[in-house]
Parts: sequence; structure tokens; C-alpha cells
Amino acid sequence: MACDTVEAVEVTQLDVTLWQQGIRRIREAIGAEHVIDDSEEVAYRSRVIIPSARKPSAFLYPKTVAQIQEIVGIANELKLPLWPVSRGKNWGYGSATPCQDGALVMVLERLDRILEVNTEMAYAVVEPGVTYRQLHQHLLDQNIDLWLDCTDGPADASVTGNALERGIGETPYGDHFENICGLEVVLPNGRLMRTGGGPMEGYQSWNCHKWGVGPYLEGLFSQSNYGIVTKMGVWLMPKPEKFVSCLFELENEEDFPQLIDAMRRLQFNGAIRSKVHLINDFIMFAVVDKYPHHLLQGGKCLSRETQLQLRKEYNISSWTFAAGIYGSRDQVRAGMRLAKQELAPLGRLQFISDGKIKTIQQLTRWLQNLGKRSLGATPAKKIGWQLFKKPLSIMEFLPHVHAIEKGVPSDYFVKHAYYKNRRPKPEGKDIDPARDHCGLIWLGPIIPLNGRQVTEVLDMVRPLYEKYQFEFSTALMVANPRSVIALMSIFFDKQNPEETARAEQLYFEMGRVTQAAGYQQYRTSTAYMDRILEPAPEFRSLASQIKTALDPNNIMAPGKYGVGL
Amino acid sequence: MACDTVEAVEVTQLDVTLWQQGIRRIREAIGAEHVIDDSEEVAYRSRVIIPSARKPSAFLYPKTVAQIQEIVGIANELKLPLWPVSRGKNWGYGSATPCQDGALVMVLERLDRILEVNTEMAYAVVEPGVTYRQLHQHLLDQNIDLWLDCTDGPADASVTGNALERGIGETPYGDHFENICGLEVVLPNGRLMRTGGGPMEGYQSWNCHKWGVGPYLEGLFSQSNYGIVTKMGVWLMPKPEKFVSCLFELENEEDFPQLIDAMRRLQFNGAIRSKVHLINDFIMFAVVDKYPHHLLQGGKCLSRETQLQLRKEYNISSWTFAAGIYGSRDQVRAGMRLAKQELAPLGRLQFISDGKIKTIQQLTRWLQNLGKRSLGATPAKKIGWQLFKKPLSIMEFLPHVHAIEKGVPSDYFVKHAYYKNRRPKPEGKDIDPARDHCGLIWLGPIIPLNGRQVTEVLDMVRPLYEKYQFEFSTALMVANPRSVIALMSIFFDKQNPEETARAEQLYFEMGRVTQAAGYQQYRTSTAYMDRILEPAPEFRSLASQIKTALDPNNIMAPGKYGVGL
Repeated sequence: MACDTVEAVEVTQLDVTLWQQGIRRIREAIGAEHVIDDSEEVAYRSRVIIPSARKPSAFLYPKTVAQIQEIVGIANELKLPLWPVSRGKNWGYGSATPCQDGALVMVLERLDRILEVNTEMAYAVVEPGVTYRQLHQHLLDQNIDLWLDCTDGPADASVTGNALERGIGETPYGDHFENICGLEVVLPNGRLMRTGGGPMEGYQSWNCHKWGVGPYLEGLFSQSNYGIVTKMGVWLMPKPEKFVSCLFELENEEDFPQLIDAMRRLQFNGAIRSKVHLINDFIMFAVVDKYPHHLLQGGKCLSRETQLQLRKEYNISSWTFAAGIYGSRDQVRAGMRLAKQELAPLGRLQFISDGKIKTIQQLTRWLQNLGKRSLGATPAKKIGWQLFKKPLSIMEFLPHVHAIEKGVPSDYFVKHAYYKNRRPKPEGKDIDPARDHCGLIWLGPIIPLNGRQVTEVLDMVRPLYEKYQFEFSTALMVANPRSVIALMSIFFDKQNPEETARAEQLYFEMGRVTQAAGYQQYRTSTAYMDRILEPAPEFRSLASQIKTALDPNNIMAPGKYGVGL
Repeated sequence: MACDTVEAVEVTQLDVTLWQQGIRRIREAIGAEHVIDDSEEVAYRSRVIIPSARKPSAFLYPKTVAQIQEIVGIANELKLPLWPVSRGKNWGYGSATPCQDGALVMVLERLDRILEVNTEMAYAVVEPGVTYRQLHQHLLDQNIDLWLDCTDGPADASVTGNALERGIGETPYGDHFENICGLEVVLPNGRLMRTGGGPMEGYQSWNCHKWGVGPYLEGLFSQSNYGIVTKMGVWLMPKPEKFVSCLFELENEEDFPQLIDAMRRLQFNGAIRSKVHLINDFIMFAVVDKYPHHLLQGGKCLSRETQLQLRKEYNISSWTFAAGIYGSRDQVRAGMRLAKQELAPLGRLQFISDGKIKTIQQLTRWLQNLGKRSLGATPAKKIGWQLFKKPLSIMEFLPHVHAIEKGVPSDYFVKHAYYKNRRPKPEGKDIDPARDHCGLIWLGPIIPLNGRQVTEVLDMVRPLYEKYQFEFSTALMVANPRSVIALMSIFFDKQNPEETARAEQLYFEMGRVTQAAGYQQYRTSTAYMDRILEPAPEFRSLASQIKTALDPNNIMAPGKYGVGL
């Protein structure tokens, strides 16, 4: 990426003198080392895994609420656009980049204090820089019997950022926006306020009663540009007496609509309250392995025959899901019985206890070591197959799935962003799909949780994957008993411009087609924000009226979710 | 009430010519018979059961969304304040009256269509005039296996009105605002919009996914004055395989904090997901009987000795609650076991099935009839006591409690507003506490659901009841596992001005004291609205900024919840 590009952006979008003045004053306010405007470094920090993104003009790293307020003051005075992010790990949606060129990205990672964990009332109050990994470690270190809910995204993502973007996790607390309670916000005018209609200090129910008194305003700070959240209450789950996970594999692809209807009933009756992710075969391949370029046979994507062959090789089904069942021993037993009734007729259902997972983990590791040290990989794999009837890569996957249903963040799943990347998946925690030129973008229409409509949407987008020659890859994330997000993934080789362009075309066409059919997205990427509210002019007009009133200079994330364009 | 008062108000608050012009034009728009400005009739329709209220200048009854929009247009043009209510049955909080004199009350009772019941996805879409009774009857008539959640307030209250005021019902769906999904709103500028960021028509997930896309704006239309809701999606509960209710009576008053902590654990572990109302002795007396004026012994309120004597006579405890347990047979059994573990050490816990309720009902009726027809009341009561160890009035109460936990609206509980009224409680459905000069006002601070803080608040307000010589009457409504509303009731004789004034003094002092201690109210009366946001100037300022932007003429419920004063 040429450094000049970034400079050019600054000149066209912003008044250079004002921008330079702003950078100088922000340097004075927060310390020069916390302002990055070197164009090469800015370009590096702006890398994304989506096909294309807008270019910020600088990165700012304030440490305190007062510093944020000062930056907001300067931005208002000089009419400079800010783009606040918590950690910037919004991978499949644009990472840390703004939706308009030139914005000053304000990263809140240095506000990283866990301000309170209330063990009795089961909540935490965190700053926006606090990550899943950090909060989880804190609960472990302090021996607190509370579980958080994390996503299967990066462990170093912000708890706050994900909740405000309305991310979906794994456990019964997986509707992240539903489980936040109490926000402190710097408004576009620089003033600090707290939601809930109570006093700033000593408001007894601030983190316990979501709606407060007076208009419920917390929603204003979600998927929006009306303020910068500086503190957030988040509800945590008291550790249940008993936990098992379950793994389900659909036997016949044609029974898919029945599976969806069964899932709705299980969500309604509470047998399964976790935010189940039903993944199709290609998502499973992406999670457990690398893309088999050698099987392309000259085409641009894998053939149907290859797909079916791979299913056999991995011994996986068209659709797989894991779920958690939580409660007292009796409650878990009751949940398991209901799950069996609904699911056993449709496929293979296994319940997995902590003990079973330990055994699987030990055997898998032992076989892998054996393979590396003495036996050789192929014989080890064969023994594994004899034991599990699955490849070792799938067995390796299970403990991560089991753990994440208990709110244990994992770096494992993020690696699936490396699916089409030419380098091997990274080991350990050194995972940075943006740095490593991975290509992945998500489009997540919301669908009522019934077999008919979910099938309708999948049938609508599958031909588009074929048209643009990508493998159809989707994870259905149950959001609540009535709705599911069909998270369409487009994996592409970012170092291949033709493929990247095709991915982008598929993405926009999928968005157009699903929106035209009345399916709106649960969240969108920076690339789609200018179009996301097109079907809702009256809604957008209301949101814009509020925007103008609160942020007359339009300095706060202009254009985010189509507001303040 | 002198008719002149109302006239006087109009003159001082509004420009008479504009007001007359407005009434004339609204008559043309919606039909003369749907505009009530006869001052006597206006005064009659403005009756309240709270100590004092503001006086509207007219009542308007539009039938359609277009008529509402027309009225809003006229109001904007002539700067006339509107006060929209759904049914106006907001009894303990001010009924249909506005919080400022002179407003034109717009009653939406004629928009009373149930637009859709989706049996698969378990929701209904209703207009604001639809009542609990009506929706319940509709589900019965259509043989739909869905249960609604109603409050223990009037069966003829609006489903929409209660949800927007954030009322709390009884079942797991009892957080009414939590269970709404999809609003259509007439904005103060007269334009129609729908929440959720999708198209106006054919938005597939409008009633299934609460947050939609873009900023979540539904909260703006709750406890506020930013618009008039004309359609609302409301989630309904699929009828569970098994249901039992349970009744608990605390043995030792000193164990009250332990009871609260047990309730929190039962809510967390899901054994009890219903919105339990823990009622103290005086609430129970008010529900099952009339105030024993003859026991006053010259004082203004009943003595501690009388209170204890009454507890013995009714054989009731200091605290009682009923709850529902829902699920499969196994799930209900698991819930019952957990409830027993937590509650049996603290008092008497009974589980009540539909069958048991039928028997109780039959026996009670049989004894009552026997008493009336042949045996005489006293011997019948004696037999009842032998059978149940409770007075018949308490046995009569049980079936209503059991039914309401299944979402069956009841007129039974509202009658407790007649507690201090000199006339007998009305029979059947002819219940109108406002018409009948009942006196009752509620103050509902939100408290974290733990024994320590609930005790703190009760200890804070109990001396105020003593100071103002009222019986301490409170129902603790569990809102979620982390919070409870202490609904303080002040029963007073509205026909006694001295007592009414004392009730008002107690009310405001209780509000002051609890707010000063950091306990905000979950909802407030029209009498308190100007003070409710005093502890939250920054919050109020944000709410006011939005108000000014959306409603520059301040025509929409000015002053509601302290906004647009």
C-alpha cells in the first residue's frame, strides 16, 4: 500500500491545516507517543480482511475519560471526524477502519480496567479496552464462580465493543447487547452521562435493572454514532451445578428444515438455551483444516463431488452444531431428555462431559506426539480413526467447542480466517488475520427461526456463491428462540486481486438480494454501512434527526450504520 | 369537582382561541362524537385514585393511524399539548390524566385490532387499544396454544400501554418491555415509522429479533414522549407441557433477608422464572378483605397488636408469595426440587396443580353457597377453617393467583384498590376504582435483589408509614434475577381530604428519601414526573436534546417523565 494514498485522502477529505493543528493539539493532550500519524504505520494498522476498506488518517490511543473528552472537544472545534473503536478486532466487518476516508481512529485499548465484579449480583463493570481473555483470567485468578460469555472470535476482542455491535456469543448469555446493563458515555458535545436515569454515583440498580427510569436510551449507543461508551456493566452467569455440551450431526441433508424447527422448540422449552451455531460442512473444513488448493482441478472453487468426498474424508455431516446444557443435575437431565427426543430422530447426538473431553484431549495429544516422534503421522492418524472414526483435526476441535460453551475464550476458531491464506495457520496466540493478509467477510441476515424461512434464505444465496465461484459457507447463529443469524462467510485469497474483487461482488449482491426479500442484517461491515438503512428511509430519517441534534458538527463516526453520511 | 376549574385551566395554560379552533378541527377530522370537551364529562373522565392530578381540557378518541397523524398535525400547527394514553387504566400512577394541566388526552381504545397472531413464532401484533382480556379471549377462541402475560392490574388495561410503561406481569414473560418486538410509531412531526431498521412492509424479522439493525430505538418510545405507538409486536409463551404454581409463606419474619437471597438463587438457576410478587400482610388483607375501620380504636391506622391479631385471624404470614413453574414434566420436577431445597427451611411451601385448584374452588363455592342458603355464614366459615386452616376469603384468592401465573387476566386483584373505600368491593367486572373514589398510589423503587439492600429500603420507608399513620403495605415484584421493585402502596380514603393530604405527603417523602439513597423508581406517577429525573441532570439533558429535535413545538405529552417541561 503506497503511503501517498493515505496522504492524498487527508488532503481531499479534510482541511490539512486543521488536521495538522488537531494532531498537534491531541499530541499535547494525550502524549505524542499515543498519536500515530506516520502514513506507513497508519496503513499497517488499517489492514483489514474484508475486500476493501476506507483509510483513516491517524490512530489515537487515549488513556482516560478526560482525555477522550478533550479529543472530542478538539474534534468539534476543528471539525475533525473521529472513529472510536474499543480494540479494533472487528475482523469480518472491517476491523478498526472507519466507513469514510480520513477519520481519526480512536482506539480505547488503554482504558482496560475491570472496575468491579459483583459476585452476589453476578455482573462486572468494565472499561472498553477490557478483553474476553482478561475478564476470564480475572474470574479465574479471583476464584469467582461466574462465567462470562465470549464469542468464537478473537480472545483479545473487547467485551464492550462486541456487545455494542450486538455480537452473539455461545452460552445463554450470548445475546451480548441483551446482557449489558449500565453505560457511561462521552456524548458528542464532550459531556459525560450515564444511562438509567439515576445519579452518576451511587445509583444502586445501575447494573441490575436494564431499563432504568424514563426513556430507555442505552440502545442509542449500539450500532450507532451518538457517543463513546467509557464504562459498561455486563451480566455474568453464575456457574451452574452441572454442565454438559452436546454435539449433533445431521444425518440427511433433506431434514435440514426439520432440524431448524426442532431447534426452535428446544430454545422455547429451554432445553437448549445456548446460542447454538449450526455450521455447514465448509465452515467445519475451514475451522479444522486449510483449503485444499490441490483439489481445484483448474476451477475456481471446489466441485460438488469434492465437497462430498471431503465430507467422507473428515466423516462430517452437512450440518453440525454444539450446544451447552446448564443447570442442576436434574435440570440438565431434563434438558438432555428433551434434546434427545427432538434430535435423535434427525442424526447423531452425543453428550460430552468435562471428563470425556479430558480423555479425548489426552488421547489426541498422545497420538499427535506419537505421530511426530516415532510412529509417523499416517499410522497415528489411522489409530485415531480407529478410536474416534474422525480425523484427529476434528477431535482437536471438540475441547475448544466444549470450553467456549463455558465462556472460555479461545484463539482456536479465529484461525479459520486463514482458510484460503497461503501460509499455514499460526500456532499459539500469535494470530492476526489482518497482518497476515487473510481474506474473509461476513454477511449476516436475520431470519425467523423456522425451517421454511431459513431454507428460503439459504436457497436464495447458494446460487450466488455458485455464480461467483465460492464455496457456500455458513454458520447459523441462534440469537433467541425466534430468530437466527445466517452468517454467510466468504473466504478468499486476499493476495489474489481477481478473487478479492469477486468476493466483494458476491458480498454486495448477497446483501442486495436478501434485503430485497425483507431480510435485514443483524450487524454490518464498514463497507456496507452506506446501504444498510436504504430499505428504511423513515427509520434513517429519525436516526439522522437525533444525530444532528446530538452531533451538529458530525464528528462522531460519521456515516456509521448509514447515519450522518 | 367544579366544572369551572377545568375552564380556568384552559384559559391560563392555553390560548382559548387556538384551543377552540383545535377542538373544532379535530371534531371535523375524527367525528364530533369522538371529541369530549364538555367540562363536566371531562372532569368525570379525569378521575384518579392517586391523591391529586392535573386536569386535561378534552378527551379525543381517534380510530385510525391517519386520524392520529391528523390530530398531531393540528396540534403542531396550533401548539396544543396532547397526552396519548392507550386505555387510561394506569390506576396507581394517574390513570388517563396528564402531568400538566390543559392537555388534550388522546385515548387510543378504538384502535383495538389484533392484527396477527403467529402461532409458530409465538407472537402477536396488536394495536394500542387491545386489552389483556381481549387478547386472552382471542387465544382461547382460536384454540391457540400460546399464553400471554398479564399484570394483576385491570383485565381491560392495554397490552401496549403497560409494556411501554414497563409494567411487570407474572410469568417468565413478565418483563413486558423486554417482550415487545417491533413498534410502529407516529412521530411528533406526524410521520409514521417502524423500529428495527427494515422496510415498513415485509420486514421478515420485525417481530422476531428485538434489536433490528442500526441504533436500537425502541427504548425511545418507552416512558417517554417521543411518539405515539400505533402497532406493537408482543412475544407470547408457548404453552408448556406441565405447569404448577407454588405458594410460600415465610415462617419467621426475621428470615426475610434469607428469603430474598433464596429468591435470587432460584431466579438465577431458573427454577422460578416467573415474576414473583412477594406481598406483605397488609397487601394480603387488602386483596382478600376490606379495611377493618372498627379496629382503629380512635387512631388513624391499625396498631401493631391489631396487625398481629389479624395475621392470626387470617392465618397468614408476614410475607407470602405465589410463583409458577413451567416446563416439561422433568423440568418442572427439577424446578420443584430446587424450590424445596431453598424454601422449605424458611417456611411453608405448597405446590398447586390445576386439579388441586379445581377441588379448592369447588369446596370453597360449595361452602359459600351452603353458608348463604342453609347453614349460615359462621358455621360455613368454621367448616372451611377445619378443612383449610384458612378463612374462605384466602381460599377464594388461590385460584386467581394460580390462573394469573398462566396468563389468565383477572378482575379479582384490582379490587384491592377498594380496601379503604367505604362501599363494598364490586362484584363481577363492574370495577372502576376511579369512578368509585378509591384512594391508592404506588411508589416503586428498584432494588438489587439481595436481602441486605431490600431490607435497607424497607427499613428506610417503614418509619415514614408510621410517621404519616398508614399501614405499611408493600409488594416486592421480582423484575429479573438481579432486581426487584418494592411496590409501596398507600391506601387511603379519597373522600377524606385530611387522609388524602397525608397520603400525598407520605408519597413525596418516600420518593425523596429513596431517591436520596440512590434508589430510582421503575416507573412513576404523573404527580412525580417533574421530580423523577432530578438526580440525573446529564441524562435529562440528553433526553431533552432529543425531545427538542423531534418535537420542537413540545406538543407530545410535555413533561412526561420530566422531559419537555
